[in-house]
This record gives sequence, C-alpha cells and structure tokens, in this order.
Amino acid sequence: MIVIGGDAAGMSAASQARRRLGPGELEILAFERGDFTSYSACGIPYWVGGLVGGPDELIARDPATFRKDHIDVRTGHEVTGINLDARTVTVRDIAAGKDITEGYDVLMYAAGAVPVRPAWADNPASGIFGVQTLGDGAAIEAWLSSFDARDAVVIGGGYIGVEMAEALIRRGLRVTLVERSGQPMSTVDPDMGALVADAVRGLGIELRTGVAVRALETSDDRVRAVVTDDGTIPADVVVLGLGVRPNTALADAAGIPLGDTGGLATDLRQRVTGPDGVVDGVWAAGDCVQVTHLVSGKSLHVPLGTHANKQGRVAGINIGGGYATFPGVIGTAVTKICDLEVARTGLSSKEAEAAGFRFVTATIESTNRAGYFPGAVPMTVKVIAEKDTGLLLGAQIVGRAEAAKRIDAFAIAVWNRMTVVEMTALDLGYAPPFAPVWDPVLIAARKAADKI
Amino acid sequence: MIVIGGDAAGMSAASQARRRLGPGELEILAFERGDFTSYSACGIPYWVGGLVGGPDELIARDPATFRKDHIDVRTGHEVTGINLDARTVTVRDIAAGKDITEGYDVLMYAAGAVPVRPAWADNPASGIFGVQTLGDGAAIEAWLSSFDARDAVVIGGGYIGVEMAEALIRRGLRVTLVERSGQPMSTVDPDMGALVADAVRGLGIELRTGVAVRALETSDDRVRAVVTDDGTIPADVVVLGLGVRPNTALADAAGIPLGDTGGLATDLRQRVTGPDGVVDGVWAAGDCVQVTHLVSGKSLHVPLGTHANKQGRVAGINIGGGYATFPGVIGTAVTKICDLEVARTGLSSKEAEAAGFRFVTATIESTNRAGYFPGAVPMTVKVIAEKDTGLLLGAQIVGRAEAAKRIDAFAIAVWNRMTVVEMTALDLGYAPPFAPVWDPVLIAARKAADKI
Repeated sequence: MIVIGGDAAGMSAASQARRRLGPGELEILAFERGDFTSYSACGIPYWVGGLVGGPDELIARDPATFRKDHIDVRTGHEVTGINLDARTVTVRDIAAGKDITEGYDVLMYAAGAVPVRPAWADNPASGIFGVQTLGDGAAIEAWLSSFDARDAVVIGGGYIGVEMAEALIRRGLRVTLVERSGQPMSTVDPDMGALVADAVRGLGIELRTGVAVRALETSDDRVRAVVTDDGTIPADVVVLGLGVRPNTALADAAGIPLGDTGGLATDLRQRVTGPDGVVDGVWAAGDCVQVTHLVSGKSLHVPLGTHANKQGRVAGINIGGGYATFPGVIGTAVTKICDLEVARTGLSSKEAEAAGFRFVTATIESTNRAGYFPGAVPMTVKVIAEKDTGLLLGAQIVGRAEAAKRIDAFAIAVWNRMTVVEMTALDLGYAPPFAPVWDPVLIAARKAADKI
Repeated sequence: MIVIGGDAAGMSAASQARRRLGPGELEILAFERGDFTSYSACGIPYWVGGLVGGPDELIARDPATFRKDHIDVRTGHEVTGINLDARTVTVRDIAAGKDITEGYDVLMYAAGAVPVRPAWADNPASGIFGVQTLGDGAAIEAWLSSFDARDAVVIGGGYIGVEMAEALIRRGLRVTLVERSGQPMSTVDPDMGALVADAVRGLGIELRTGVAVRALETSDDRVRAVVTDDGTIPADVVVLGLGVRPNTALADAAGIPLGDTGGLATDLRQRVTGPDGVVDGVWAAGDCVQVTHLVSGKSLHVPLGTHANKQGRVAGINIGGGYATFPGVIGTAVTKICDLEVARTGLSSKEAEAAGFRFVTATIESTNRAGYFPGAVPMTVKVIAEKDTGLLLGAQIVGRAEAAKRIDAFAIAVWNRMTVVEMTALDLGYAPPFAPVWDPVLIAARKAADKI
C-alpha cells in the first residue's frame, strides 16, 4: 500500500488498514512532501493568534509514532508520477534530490488541496502567506516576529479569512478584511452574515465587502500594499484566504478520471471511480475528492478535516478487508469570531434556491439557557424547510455561547430527512443551565412548522 | 373550555386554543389551586442556591398576562369534582371558602403531579419541605432565613435531590444526601453514577447511598434529625426529593379511566383514552399523564416541564381546531452538579435489559474541544446499542463543559432509529473551539460500531 499525502486522510487510511492487516500481510509506505504528518491545519489561526502553543500541539501523530505501527512514513518525499499500468509511483526525495520508483498493490491518493491563487497573487515578494500547512503557519509566525509589522490585510472573508483576521488583531496589528462578495461567510444567508459582519467590525477589524483585489504592491521584495477596485490598503503582511481546490494534477496526469468539480470521484467505499467504473487499486480520501451533498444530491468539493478523517478511515477499513462507507455530507460547519459562534448545516437559502426547492424560512431569537439563568445570552436561529412537505433543508445559528454546537441537532435531523413538524416533538435535553424549556432548536422548528 | 391546573401544560393548552379561537368562539376558564401560573419549578434549586433571584424570575406568564388574552385564570381555586355526564366541574374558592359549579364543552385536565410521601414523611413539624411548587421554594427560603440552620438532609438522590443538595451547600449548610439505591441519579448506569457520586462528594456533600430512611425525629414542632437504617443524621432542614406521581385522584373519582402507570392515558392528540376509546371532551397533558417511550414501547410517567409544554401545546392546537401530535418520549434528561454536566437519553443498560434487548455498551473518554484548544476538558460518553443490528438504544454523557447538550445528537439519532454504524458517518460541526476532529459523539458511536 502506497499513500500519497501524510495528513488526516492518508494517515487515517494507513492506520485503519494496519489495524486489520499486520506488517506480514500488508506493507504500508506513505509519502509526504512536507515535514509533518496528521496535523490540524484548522488550528493555525489559533496558533498565530497566540491561543495555542507551537506547531507540535497541532500534530496528532508524528512520523515516529506511525513507524512504531510499521507504517513507513517518508516526509520530504514528493510523489511526481503514477503509472497505473505498471502499478508504480515515482517519488522525489526532496533533500537528496533523487528519484525512486516504488510498486504498489493499493494506491491511496490523499494529496489534499492546493490554494486558489489568482494571477495577482502569484508574487514572489515576502510577507504574502497562505494558511494551509504548518509550514505556512511557521512562516507567518517568523514574519511577524522578524519586525514590527503594523498593517495586515486578509483577503477572503470565509472561515479561514475571518479566523486569521481575528488572530492578527489579537497580535496587535491593524487588520483589514477584504471580501469580494457582499458579506463575510457567504455560506450563511445575508441576514445571518450581517450579524457576522457586526461581530467582525466589533473586534476592530476593518471589513471591506464587495471589494475586489486587483494587485499586490511590493518593493524591496516585500509586500507593501493591496490594490483593490476601491483604493489601496497598506500591508506589511497579506494573508490569502481564497479557498482551495482539489490537488489532482498528479492523478489527472496519470489518466485517473476526475469528477465534475475537479476532485476525484469515489464510490461509497472511497474507491476512485470514473465513467468506466472503479479504477482498479486506487483509493482516495480527503481534500482531493468530491463528495455528495445528501440534500441537494449534487457533487461538491468540501475540504474539511472532519470529512478527511472519516473518508480516510472508511478507505482504510475497506483496504484492510473490512466494510465501511462514507455516504456524503450535509454541509455542516461551525466557527467562532471572538465570542460570536456561527454555524450552518444543510442548504442555505441560496443553495436551496439553486437546488430547485420551494421553501420557507423562519428566524427566531432565543437564549442558550433559561432566560432567568445566569449566563443566558441571545441566539438567532434560522430554519429553511421545503414549503409543501416541511422537510428540513437547512439551518443556521449565530449566538454568543453554547450556540454553534446546537447545529448538530439540525444536522442529524437533516440527515434523517425529518420534517420541521416532526421536529417540534423532539425530546431534547432540558434543564435551566442548558436551555429554555423550549430549546431554540425547537422554537425555530415550531415557527417554520407554522408556515407549512 | 375549562382548564384544571394553571402551570405549563394547562396554560400552554389555553394559549394555543386562544391563538386559534377568539373570545367569541371559545371561553377559557383556568383554575389554579396555588397563587402562580406557568412557572419553572425546575428553577427552584437555583433560587434556593442563590443563583437566581426571587420567584418572579421563575414565572413565565402571570395571570394578568393571560387575562389580557381573554383567558380567565382564577388562582386560589381548587377543582374538587368533575361530572362527566353533566359536563360540569365543582370549584372551591379557597379564600372565600365557597364552591361554584361551571359547565364545560372541553375539559383540559392538567392537574400535575403530587409528591411521593412515605408514611414516615407524613409529619406536621416544620422544617420539612418538598420541591414542587413556588410555594415550596418560598417556604424553604423563609425557613432558612428565619434562623441559623446548620444541618440539612436531602432525601432522594435523583435530579432534584442532587440539585437541592448543591443549593444548600451553596447556602453554607452542612448537607447530607441520602439515597436508598446504590448511586445518585439512578437513571444513569452505575459506572456513570460513580462519576456523579465523586462530583457530589467533591462539593463537600456527605453522600449516603444504600441507606433507607426510617423516620423523622421532631421536637417542639420542628424537625431535628433523620433516622435511617444506618444511623441518625441531625437535621435543621429536611428536603424531600422522592419523586412524584400523577395527580389523578380527581379524574379517578369522576370515573375517568387511568393508565397502567396511574397517569391518564391519552391518544397522540392528548385526548384522554380508556378501554372504550376516547373519553368525550376530556383532554390531558403534563405531569398527570403517562407517555410512551419510543424505544421500549412502554408506558411511563415522566414528569418534566419540557414534555408538559409540548403536550399542552399539542392539546391546545387540537382543541382550537388544528392538528398536532405528541408521539412520545425517549427519556432525555440533563442536569448539572457544580460544573459536572450529566445527560442521558434512550434506555439505560438496566432499562434495555428490562425491555428485552440484547445489547453492547461502549464507553469512551474524549474532550469538549480540540485537545490543544484552551478550555479543553475531559468528557465520558457511553453508548448502548442493540448487539445484532447496531440500533442505538441510549447514551449517557458526563463531562465538565459543553458536554450535556451533546446528548441532543444522540436523542435525535435514537428518535430516528439510527444505527451506531450509520452514526459514524454523521456530518457534525467541527472546529477546534467546539470539538476534536472526531466529536466525542462520533468516537463513542465508532467504538460501539466496532462491537457490532
């Protein structure tokens, strides 16, 4: 078994395969271009923001630990070619500068994603960073420590962009967050996005929505400013949070078919599939694959560590001779901006519209705890339901405490195709320190049910 | 419409009926024996413990507010008889000491529950309290304020007993909690109960399990001690948390049939039913009814405000000409002892055994947040699943923060008859401030799935 990519998906697959097959039954060789394995890229903003210590804390399992399990991890090794017919891969030992060829019976493709980089971002000057690898995190750290940086511009107002903007303000920089669309976190509806925008501004971040970046100004090999269609913003440091796309160039070059979204398509067991069915011996998982959205039925690219871990586990169980499936996703995501918690699941209004649903929305205000209980703070919950049937299509939550994880209730309801009417009867946990007697989840379902 | 009982169930029914039928279409008359309407009895321990202000904070809606909606609430009025044939009730105006008779088309029976009182507890001495009504809360408050009480004994280690023990220790009393069974909170499995016991003792509460009370010692009309089969415990104040039973004496006397548990049986729409079908014109909701446990299929008496509110709402919608159902419960409950959060849903091991299931259990330790994130603290999650099918039967959680409400994920999974295998694929919210990359819910499901 050869694993391409030593992060969550690839190493979960390796570990699960190893649990089922001993070293005498299956050799496992994993190639990782970078220096680290199985790390939490999601933790980088908290590292930069000083909430979390150095990169070591973000590494779940290091290469030495895998080697104890007889998983031969080689960091600093980049796979440069796949020969499907010969069942071999060509690998560059980056430090030694030499290539080797290794044969496989099972190829686990887990090459992750590559950051989206518009032409203007293709700039060799220093002070410009992505937020994808621990190396990126270390580079930002080193840059911020090397001189008295004052102005930061974060480009892209998605989860990572907002989290990085907060991290940089915690570091004492002046921060501008530039987002091309009309709101930060465009994965939530505009009314919920407005609450996020308020929170971002409340942190002292200069939020510029509806603004497109045209160029980066540099001098002396250093970034100096961000040029937008609405003026130029000084910048000692620029962070790019422009999203990622599946890292499938290697697969594509080898003739492995790609899915509609540019990611690898797989079956339920994470075997790579193409127009002619399963690609023999090739498995894939993580940020390089596309997934099915279980509500819209559409293929999507959803690069999230939680999916990568699950898909890797599923692939590894199957490779090891077991049986497991990854049916798809329902678009659950949570984040935090200072003390503002934001969550979503299912389809947003825009996505429901695009999928062709006729739907109603209902928005309610409630509290995380019984209104009279100390620590009770407001929460806004929005529910989207099919108009004719009441089928729960999605939900969004914005609140100040104990809010975001309530999205799991909606996520499991979406997963099980519940109607908002049935949801009103759900037996959820109630006690004054934890919820009003009608949980906000139920109040929102009730209001949506009233509209069906 | 006549409502018997002015708390959550009765007043929810009245409000919902009024939303659908105006004063010209339906007269609503509600009789409440006590002085308050629609209050949170669950809040009493927090009031006594000083976390919450006076009783006013615990009242969701007072009689004046209901009267504005043309709901004629009469507090201090006790219904003393029901004549099903004549469709009348006899009501005692307690202050005036006179009886009146009122006719009805629709009778909403929401008389709540009465505390369980063994023979030894039938004692007129002062210093002995229940924890059921706001009057009980006020009486405890007055007693504790009237002299320098030092020793408190709470009898009964269920939710209310544990919450009251904590409240009294917050007030600076020496507190002994006496529980007849082997653990506090016998609604969770013994291994989880042991964690609760540790927390209770950690608060400085003297926990005495496996101890039965024999008598209360009194002198000068005051309680002085609790006599148990394992010694006598001094007591300036005794709190009885011995559970409640449905308050159905009035219904029984009127010839309304009772269910197996002693509570009123209803159909899905909250119409009272008996062996001969629906009892014409009589509805019931709240702590006086029995409910169906959707996993075991058994009838149970589950006195909880959250069910009372839902059932009352369902009854009121139906009385008002709408349609709504209350299908049953799955045994969800949460509570907090100091910072220890305890939650359960579905069936405990004992209940699964009693229902005839063959099952496996899986217990895991994880954290509320990513292990590296500030504020990450441990959590124990136990899952109970049918051995052959993997059907999720129940779950229990004990943790220190952001733990208990995770029970809602299990509750909705139980409700939808998910298997633990399917649960491993659930798309739950992940970000480092909210969960490890595998949420504890998923880790527990995964471990249980491995045993199927």
